[in-house]
Amino acid sequence: MDIKKGYKKISVIGGSRIAKDSMVYDLAYQVGKNIARNSAILVCGGLGGVMEAACRGAKEEGGLTIGILPSTEEGAANSWVDIKIPTGLGYARNMLVVLSGDAVIAVDGATGTLTEIGYALTFNKPLIGINTWKIKPYRGIRTSGIITADSAEEAVSLALEQSSDTT
Amino acid sequence: MDIKKGYKKISVIGGSRIAKDSMVYDLAYQVGKNIARNSAILVCGGLGGVMEAACRGAKEEGGLTIGILPSTEEGAANSWVDIKIPTGLGYARNMLVVLSGDAVIAVDGATGTLTEIGYALTFNKPLIGINTWKIKPYRGIRTSGIITADSAEEAVSLALEQSSDTT
Amino acid sequence: MDIKKGYKKISVIGGSRIAKDSMVYDLAYQVGKNIARNSAILVCGGLGGVMEAACRGAKEEGGLTIGILPSTEEGAANSWVDIKIPTGLGYARNMLVVLSGDAVIAVDGATGTLTEIGYALTFNKPLIGINTWKIKPYRGIRTSGIITADSAEEAVSLALEQSSDTT
Amino acid sequence: MDIKKGYKKISVIGGSRIAKDSMVYDLAYQVGKNIARNSAILVCGGLGGVMEAACRGAKEEGGLTIGILPSTEEGAANSWVDIKIPTGLGYARNMLVVLSGDAVIAVDGATGTLTEIGYALTFNKPLIGINTWKIKPYRGIRTSGIITADSAEEAVSLALEQSSDTT
Repeated sequence: MDIKKGYKKISVIGGSRIAKDSMVYDLAYQVGKNIARNSAILVCGGLGGVMEAACRGAKEEGGLTIGILPSTEEGAANSWVDIKIPTGLGYARNMLVVLSGDAVIAVDGATGTLTEIGYALTFNKPLIGINTWKIKPYRGIRTSGIITADSAEEAVSLALEQSSDTT
Repeated sequence: MDIKKGYKKISVIGGSRIAKDSMVYDLAYQVGKNIARNSAILVCGGLGGVMEAACRGAKEEGGLTIGILPSTEEGAANSWVDIKIPTGLGYARNMLVVLSGDAVIAVDGATGTLTEIGYALTFNKPLIGINTWKIKPYRGIRTSGIITADSAEEAVSLALEQSSDTT
Repeated sequence: MDIKKGYKKISVIGGSRIAKDSMVYDLAYQVGKNIARNSAILVCGGLGGVMEAACRGAKEEGGLTIGILPSTEEGAANSWVDIKIPTGLGYARNMLVVLSGDAVIAVDGATGTLTEIGYALTFNKPLIGINTWKIKPYRGIRTSGIITADSAEEAVSLALEQSSDTT
Repeated sequence: MDIKKGYKKISVIGGSRIAKDSMVYDLAYQVGKNIARNSAILVCGGLGGVMEAACRGAKEEGGLTIGILPSTEEGAANSWVDIKIPTGLGYARNMLVVLSGDAVIAVDGATGTLTEIGYALTFNKPLIGINTWKIKPYRGIRTSGIITADSAEEAVSLALEQSSDTT
């Protein structure tokens, strides 16, 4: 993939323990495919589950994938990560996964994903969710929050659309 | 305060922008008082709002307060922080606020608090919430999550009780 | 120890693998004793070697010790750490050890200590060295650098003196 | 640039305040050119001075550049950074710059560079230096340390050679 000025980076967040034959795995895989088809770069935490599925989808469409890893070594990265960024920060690297995206797509997700959702809202990143956590603010602090999508295609087009003014 | 082996550290998380005359400010203040009365150490992010109110309450009861700051300097700390830990990590320090507590009490809170709730669940810290975010897992990943308390007294006694086996 | 406004925090940095019967261990132990005698708080990385020796010395003089740990758990801390701050950041926590001190004392030290020396110079912390790395700037960027001390007593008095205007 | 399995990443470290007409700027620029000519990816802190010069050289040879930024925003990156990784960690990101390289080349450098040299030695990264800090271990802890190069060409070939067994 040729890196051009003005390419977009989309961060995909979600749990690392997802069965390869699950609907969630396929959903993340389709998100990855759609990111690459729209010649955006995929950023993720670089591990298994949703991250692996999304990277795999992106690579099958000739995309570029970046994995921001919790470890100090690259070994933990899934096989579809092109650019490995080992941080040695453990779960503190979750903030970096969010910061590197012009928009964030949450697919399913466990508690680590919840930290990333919090960071996406904190840094005002466009945040699209599919089958993910439902967040109810106690007070009406935020009018906007997670934008719900019903398909991988919709999630990616919303992510690109919502981030257009931020880049 | 005399530091003894076996003291407990309770992390209080919540938003930094809370009116001093609000119910939330008083609630956090009462949480701080109760932490000190139970001779536990209060840990927080060291800034204003809920953090300030809790530190203030703890100090009025002769407690010890620790503020893990986002900045590289100590100047941003509220006036009731005894031990200032400047991290220079910005919001990435939220993970440290959670890790330093034997239990975590969330009072109200904005999006930064949501990252801390995620970290508390990730690291299996006992997590007590008062007037805070409602989190609905998409799947039944976790049977336990935020334990709801109705008063400052209840929140602190739950925090101490729940953390008793972890220390 | 009673925490008063205006107490000072002195960070002690040095290697974690030092023989307990070595001169270096005793030197760090004496540094810790002198920090406590001057009612300053000792901050360190919380592990073994120089960190353990310094904490041990401070505790034997009734001082207060803070250990900023690389791990997510408190278990790795040496037995003389009062306040354990687990960071989960690995060696990235070295920056925090330096930031939390009004001055920094380097005793001996391995390569991790070199990162802390770099951070102390970066953040303009008074930096006192005993038997530690010799740093030769390639260009005359800095007129000041590591202030050499010949004894634990001298190192601590220099640290307190040099940090007097920064607090 | 086409990302292939087995590409190498070389981290270039050095000060951010270097005159554009200085020998150091040209040296870093030549290092960047040589990294790209050897189809390795250039990793750096993404800012000015040595980082800018190296990225510029790499881009003029059609290389790929990664900038691991201290800020939460991408705005601070120099104009020759392809992939911007905003960390929001300030100088704590120095550890990440080192971890992302299969080898590290230090060109000149100020105190931040000293932290990166310490991290390179800590993580046993091949470390090549040109006109940079002289480090004298107090004890013979390490037989190896900074490998000195006399030219940009030599520095890059040493970096590739030394990292060949680590990948």
